[in-house]
Formats: sequence, C-alpha cells, structure tokens
Amino acid sequence: MALLYKSLSRRVLLTSAAMKRRITPDARQILLSPPLISIDFPDIWNSSSCLDYSSTATSYVSVDPMLLADDPQSTTVIDGRVIADEITSGITSEVRRMKNSMGKVPGLAVIMVGERRDSQTYVRNKIAACEEAGIKSEVSSLPDNCTEDQVLNVLSHFHEDPSIHGILVQLPLPQHLDEGKILSSVRLEKDVDGFHPLNMGNLAMRGREPLFLPCTPKGCIELLIRSGVEISGKRAVVIGRSNIVGLPTSLLLQRHHATVSIVHAFTRNPEQITREADIVVAAAGVPNLVRGSWLKPGAVVIDVGTNPVEDPSSEHGYRLIGDVCYEEASRVASAITPVPGGVGPMTVAMLLLNTLESAKRTYSFT
Amino acid sequence: MALLYKSLSRRVLLTSAAMKRRITPDARQILLSPPLISIDFPDIWNSSSCLDYSSTATSYVSVDPMLLADDPQSTTVIDGRVIADEITSGITSEVRRMKNSMGKVPGLAVIMVGERRDSQTYVRNKIAACEEAGIKSEVSSLPDNCTEDQVLNVLSHFHEDPSIHGILVQLPLPQHLDEGKILSSVRLEKDVDGFHPLNMGNLAMRGREPLFLPCTPKGCIELLIRSGVEISGKRAVVIGRSNIVGLPTSLLLQRHHATVSIVHAFTRNPEQITREADIVVAAAGVPNLVRGSWLKPGAVVIDVGTNPVEDPSSEHGYRLIGDVCYEEASRVASAITPVPGGVGPMTVAMLLLNTLESAKRTYSFT
Repeated sequence: MALLYKSLSRRVLLTSAAMKRRITPDARQILLSPPLISIDFPDIWNSSSCLDYSSTATSYVSVDPMLLADDPQSTTVIDGRVIADEITSGITSEVRRMKNSMGKVPGLAVIMVGERRDSQTYVRNKIAACEEAGIKSEVSSLPDNCTEDQVLNVLSHFHEDPSIHGILVQLPLPQHLDEGKILSSVRLEKDVDGFHPLNMGNLAMRGREPLFLPCTPKGCIELLIRSGVEISGKRAVVIGRSNIVGLPTSLLLQRHHATVSIVHAFTRNPEQITREADIVVAAAGVPNLVRGSWLKPGAVVIDVGTNPVEDPSSEHGYRLIGDVCYEEASRVASAITPVPGGVGPMTVAMLLLNTLESAKRTYSFT
Repeated sequence: MALLYKSLSRRVLLTSAAMKRRITPDARQILLSPPLISIDFPDIWNSSSCLDYSSTATSYVSVDPMLLADDPQSTTVIDGRVIADEITSGITSEVRRMKNSMGKVPGLAVIMVGERRDSQTYVRNKIAACEEAGIKSEVSSLPDNCTEDQVLNVLSHFHEDPSIHGILVQLPLPQHLDEGKILSSVRLEKDVDGFHPLNMGNLAMRGREPLFLPCTPKGCIELLIRSGVEISGKRAVVIGRSNIVGLPTSLLLQRHHATVSIVHAFTRNPEQITREADIVVAAAGVPNLVRGSWLKPGAVVIDVGTNPVEDPSSEHGYRLIGDVCYEEASRVASAITPVPGGVGPMTVAMLLLNTLESAKRTYSFT
C-alpha cells in the first residue's frame, strides 16, 4: 500500500489554469478564492411562457404525454385554506384557554414601512387573522422615507412592551434601509418570522434548535405531513434560495431527513434535477417557471410562488399565479397546492401559531 | 380561467392517512409535524468493504469498467500539502510584515479538554504550524472531568487577552460538556473556527457575511479553485451533514453558485445522486464509503475523511484513510485529493489564515 500510494502521489499534475493562478499579481492576496461570495443580487431566471390560462386547448403541446398521469382526477389538490382554517381554529381555542386561565392573550406587532400595495394586503390579512383568533395585534406604519433609527426605535418600543410576544417587520423594506441590520435587531424571543441569522444558524445546525421556524417553510412541511407525504429519505428539490423561503425550507426538509437539492438561477438543466424529486418546493418567484415536463410522475408539488399577473377581468386588475404551471403540473403530480389557496393561508396560520407559542413561552403557560 | 380553477378546486381529495391525522388525540397539539426534528444523533451509514489495500489485484471487481477513465494517468492528484505550504508561506510573509510594521503578531489560543490521542495530534500540528508562520500560540489543557464553568472561565480569559485574536475549542468535547453552549460562548470576533451559530446563519443567508469561514470548507473551496475547477453552475454533492464540515461546505459551495445536493445516511441510493455530481465532497467519516461506481467519469473528488484504520505495519499501529476508495476513485475522477495530504493540511492553513485575518481586523492593518 505504501508503495502504491507513493506511485500515485507522483502523479501530481496541475492544470494550466491552476498554474497560472499560482502567480498572483498581488502578493498579499494569499487565497485565490474571493473572501466570500455574497448572494446579494437577485437570481435572474428565464421564465417560460407556459400556459395561457385564457386558452387551455392548445397549451399542453410541449409536455411529453408520457409524463401525464393517466387519470388526472387522481391528483390531490392540497387545500391550504381548509388546513389553515383547521389550524387557526386550534389556535383560537388555545388563545381562549390562555385568556380564561390567566387573563392574557398573545400579542403581535407589525412594522410596516412605505405603502406597497402587496405589503398592505399581506399585513391586512395577518391582522384580520389575528383578530379572528383572539390575538392582540398592533401595526406601526412608517413613511417610505423614514430613517433606520425610526424603525429601530419602533422595534425597541415593541421589545419593551410585555403585551407583545411577536414582532414582524414586513418585507421588502425600502432600498435605503439596511434590511439585514433591522432584522438582526429583532429580539430573538420575539422573532416570530424566524429571520434573525442566529435563529437561521440554529435551524441549520445539528443539535441546536431555533426559537421559531420561519412561517412559510413551517407551513410547507405541515402541508406535506397533513397530506400523508413521507419526507424522510425522499428526494426533495427546493427551487429558489431566498432567506425567507428557499433557504429555511431546504434546511427544514433536511431536518426531516429528506435528501435536498437546491436549484437556483445558476443551475444548469433545472428541469433535469427537478424531475428526480419526490417533493418539489417552488419558491423562485417566477410565474410558471416549473412546467409539467419538470416533474416526475407522482411527485408532490408545493407552490410557494404568488406572482401578480395582469388580468383586466379580475376585480383588482390582476390575479396571483404560482411558480408552477398548475394545469400541466396537476396532470403529472400526485398532489399539488393551488395558488392562491395553498401555501399563502398556511403562512398566516404559522405566524399566529408562532405568536401563540411565544406567549406561552413567556408566561410558561402549558 | 375562473371556471377552470373552480372545476379543479373541486378535486380536493385527501389521502386516508391525512384524514386519520386530522383527528388528533391531543387537542392541544395543533400541528402534526413535530416542533422540530433535531439532527442530534449520529448518522449511521453502511460502510462498504471496498478495497483491501494489501491485495489490490482483485479489488476492482465491483466497478463497472465503463466507469474507469481510459487513462488513469490523466487523473490529477490535488496535492494539499503543496498548496497549503504555498498558502502558509504567504501567511508567514504577512505575519512578518505586521511584526515589522507595528510590532504585533497574530495570536491563537487552543482549548483542549481531555487526552484524546487524535485531538492531541491535531492540536500539536496546529501549534507547530503557528510557530512556523510566526503566529503566537497558547494551549490551555483541561482535564477530561473538568466542569463547563472551567471551560467558560478559560474562554473568558482568552476573550480578555488582547494578544489573542483567535480561539478554538478542540472538538469533540467530553460528553458531559454542552458543546453547543461552549461554542456559542466563543466571542464572534475571535471565532476562527467559524462554528458559532450566528456565524453559520450569516454564512447561510443571502446578503450577509460571516466574520470567519469554517476552516475545512474554506480549504476545500480553495483546493477546487487552485485546481482550476469551475464551481458556478456545477452539480455538487456533499456527503455528510456535520456542523463542522458537511453543512458549511454545502452552504459555501452554494455561495459559489454550485447546485448542491446533500447526501446523508437517510438518503436512498446515495450512489445514484453522487454519480450526477461534477464535484463530490465526501465528509461522512466512513472509511471507503464512496466507491468508484459512485462517481461520474471526470468528477472532481474532495475527500475530507480521515479515518484511522489498524495497520500493524505502520509506525503507530494505524494509518488514516479517507471516505473515498482512493484506488477506485482515482480511475474515474478527473482530480482527487489524497488522504493524508489532501484536505488536512489545508484545514490547518485556513486556521492560520483566519487568525491572521482576525489580527489584521483588530489592528486595522491592511
């Protein structure tokens, strides 16, 4: 063996690229690898035209018919509204029990900067859901041009308020604010969105536990489990690597012992790797990115995308569609979440649940 | 479209498993998913017998000859010793420059608990490397039965010492000590191992930067780059998901825009998914886990495993082998790191570099 190893180690060859790199212009640059690659720019995907929802007849031409389920009726539509309602009803009971037992209710504070219409809608939905569940809620709205200090002051006010158990900063923030700094300033014990990097590190690492699981990933896992999908040992592909969905979802699926692959805009042949997955979580934010041909027959598809597309026939002039070509996918997948009515309601329910859990922890209420 | 969607949403079916789960025995258990799955137990892999190094003649029988490179001589052996020496020499120059310019040198403190022979060897190597590079080093050895408070006291002593810029706690710690708590107590600015969960969260998240990259993953990336391997867009498989290697390596490869899959002991058909990879990082801690048949011809293989196996012919009665069947793999891969002499020396070099960078940051020395 010693001889064998020796003969192998003589085979040290270097590619010419590597040889060139050994001569660096700046002697102080000890490593050739950059100090750190920051994934700070948006992933740019090539969206596909997919399906024109207004004319369904000719829209499946590009799908291999072999990939289509024989009986599309066998596809389970995972109804996020029904599941979220059930969870919210459980939360409501628990809130009532807490109130009856100790005269306290959980409290959620939302910090909202600017007047983005989509953010306003999301915040309105969250507040309405709180009210329904008996959770106290408070919104602090700041103008679009507010300073970082103003946001931090509001944050600090909510930190001190003992009736507030969860704080969320509605994203995205205006460009001039340092989102990273602001999210890092949310006190861990009230970080019901779970976006603090320490929380994320604890989610990623073995033997550690985050105080809160980010709401959307937590909702995705719950949808899978409630639909009877086994996660352990399964191949899962997460499409997209955002801090709020893709990253924590991949970490959480791995905690559940799935074999996880993360697909992003730099992935070559994303359809090929996605086609290997038993579970596909699409969270790229690109309408109709995932075609029927991307899916293995029988795959379970969780569509996190909520992309507004113009629709003059709709009440507000637009409607939401997912990252997945629903029509195509529902003919291949064994189960799929619709958009809207899939992951969205679950995210809100998980926010309420995180707030309830935070209050229970604060009051040691079991 | 509205009609179409409506007809689809009628197809809401639930699997019988899901139906059963809706009736939970405990009404307070709102979610069916466990609060959090802790990856706290060791991954148990089925190791293969692989190659008997003492009789090479019959050892390749299970490898598909089609997978073997036509010309095994074309396999590049990535010589970690040579590359690490080159990096260390750069570090040495920088340390000298710092000393000449301001009379200061970087300082590393190592906390060592117990008397594990492997740990002692690792620590001795690290200290020797520090001396060679002109970095001050200090070892604090504590008995195997010391208390957590004793470790924390030593830590706090090094935190206060301005001549110490990096602190590492040699792992593994004895069972009775809370490793998570101790590693979380290392001050971020001196956490040259990069194992603090906040550091890991910052490594995982877009738009954030950790203060230090964990040494072994940083070394792996440097080996790839120095060997002229393009990472962006490539399929990478990381085998193993430990906090110190697997996890941060997968996060770092993703920062470099690889499409990363994480293979672990729950993965079904690990050979199949590994065979899709352009870059394989083996860090399971299982001797000879990765066979030649697991590799795509032309793949680049980084073997992080350092598994002691008995060897009466060797000086200490054992020798180190990797997670990869080297003989088999070197006939399939386009480049491979040997064990020893691959990743090991790079880990030490990266530790010195992190310590240097920490000192530079402390003194604002550029």
